[in-house]
Amino acid sequence: MSELHESLSLVSEARCFGGRQQTWQHASESTGTPMKFGVYLPPQAETQACPVVYWLSGLTCTEDNFITKAGAQRYAAELGLILVAPDTSPRGTDLPGEHDSWDFGSGAGFYVDATQAPWSAHYRMASYVSRELPALVKAHFPVNGRQGISGHSMGGHGALVTALRHPGQYASVSAFAPIAAPTRSPWGQKAFGHYLGPDQSQWAAYDAHLLLAQATHKQPILVDQGAADSFLEQQQLLPELLEAAAREADYPLTLRYQPGYDHGYFFVSSFIGEHLAWHAQQLQS
Amino acid sequence: MSELHESLSLVSEARCFGGRQQTWQHASESTGTPMKFGVYLPPQAETQACPVVYWLSGLTCTEDNFITKAGAQRYAAELGLILVAPDTSPRGTDLPGEHDSWDFGSGAGFYVDATQAPWSAHYRMASYVSRELPALVKAHFPVNGRQGISGHSMGGHGALVTALRHPGQYASVSAFAPIAAPTRSPWGQKAFGHYLGPDQSQWAAYDAHLLLAQATHKQPILVDQGAADSFLEQQQLLPELLEAAAREADYPLTLRYQPGYDHGYFFVSSFIGEHLAWHAQQLQS
Repeated sequence: MSELHESLSLVSEARCFGGRQQTWQHASESTGTPMKFGVYLPPQAETQACPVVYWLSGLTCTEDNFITKAGAQRYAAELGLILVAPDTSPRGTDLPGEHDSWDFGSGAGFYVDATQAPWSAHYRMASYVSRELPALVKAHFPVNGRQGISGHSMGGHGALVTALRHPGQYASVSAFAPIAAPTRSPWGQKAFGHYLGPDQSQWAAYDAHLLLAQATHKQPILVDQGAADSFLEQQQLLPELLEAAAREADYPLTLRYQPGYDHGYFFVSSFIGEHLAWHAQQLQS
Repeated sequence: MSELHESLSLVSEARCFGGRQQTWQHASESTGTPMKFGVYLPPQAETQACPVVYWLSGLTCTEDNFITKAGAQRYAAELGLILVAPDTSPRGTDLPGEHDSWDFGSGAGFYVDATQAPWSAHYRMASYVSRELPALVKAHFPVNGRQGISGHSMGGHGALVTALRHPGQYASVSAFAPIAAPTRSPWGQKAFGHYLGPDQSQWAAYDAHLLLAQATHKQPILVDQGAADSFLEQQQLLPELLEAAAREADYPLTLRYQPGYDHGYFFVSSFIGEHLAWHAQQLQS
């Protein structure tokens, strides 16, 4: 591990809202590739350990989209939150078909540990996000041990399943327009078929609405969904299945439909302040 | 004019902070090309006419950079400001050398009316920004006649010279890291040489520090400059010449050096809220 940690290098840094927006790169043990992630250190992190919120991004994104488009730093600076935003897949490999689709392969790791060749050698984003990255962050940044997780679309799916698969690991959980039932959506079925194979019983371990139905650790979850989101209409997101599962299981889910909002970053930026305030409340209680 | 107005078409629209972020395209009379611009309509614009702040972007930018990276909509929604952000040059032409440099030609119109062939046929961004665009905005959006102007880097130069060349037209003026003395900087000398020709006496009409020295309409100006901006060190920006001219002419310039900030959008996003509040104060008084 120490060798890997030694590979951690600063790619860029800029002052932002009195704190620092950084991008880091390291050699990932999980993916066997270089991985990049963004870190926002609020002004408070200069003098004290702070809670951290992980942000998982959506299809086609890198670690850069959330950093540059969400406007999250302002709120993190006010609330004293560290933000960590990893890339969405391994990079630098050239597996057959890896770069052919925008909804599969590079930019589309789906936060699973692939079990099928050739993906299983590198596409281990579940381990990366839930274990390797938090260990790296703990070792190198002024975090206080309290952590939350959020994300958008594929990353909303990632946030929900990562939290539900690791009960108690995240003190706060939220999502924007998550792929809430990937075993039932075209995006999820395509990705899971390649990464996890044809046996659909293996898919349930990464489906938020199925995991939530079985959850015994009932961590409150906040989900915002744009009501004018075209992917909602296309049955890619299926928040209604998450809601039904929550109702059935008496799970504390708050699902809000935001009238007029679509799937893009203007939607995320409009509500990221409320999400971070909600994370801060639970991370600081 | 009516024919041109009829060419106005909506490229995209998304709900954002309760208002609407739009991108428009039209056939520009000034440039003889299609031009795009972003418009943010705050929630207040649904029911009343609002003041407008024009934003001019920097080298390499399109109308999209400010829209997606500055996080300005949150403040505009709070303050009831319409934001209008045009592209930085004509597009769709293929003049000799037009696309060879990042600091000249496409993406680098410098907000001048070129007098030299072949640029003079299309590179008429001064007329576009000061006359055509405001007329178009007045005809098609709920503006109340009060307007301000701001911008970043090349666009900071654009904001300052546009305001100084049209005394009284803008009730509020500010800039981020402007090219404050382009007749003295490598970027400005290159661009002005091509657009305005070798006779340097023609350049003064587009140099903020020279225009400010002669100004009789003493509109207060707010300028923020990152103290860790590498282009400051490279003598591309020269705010010290603007400051000296203001001191000499007893001009109300507020120039603030922000410690640790560089030239990028994290700098802009960190202070755009203060700038828009400052614009709103003057536009609503």
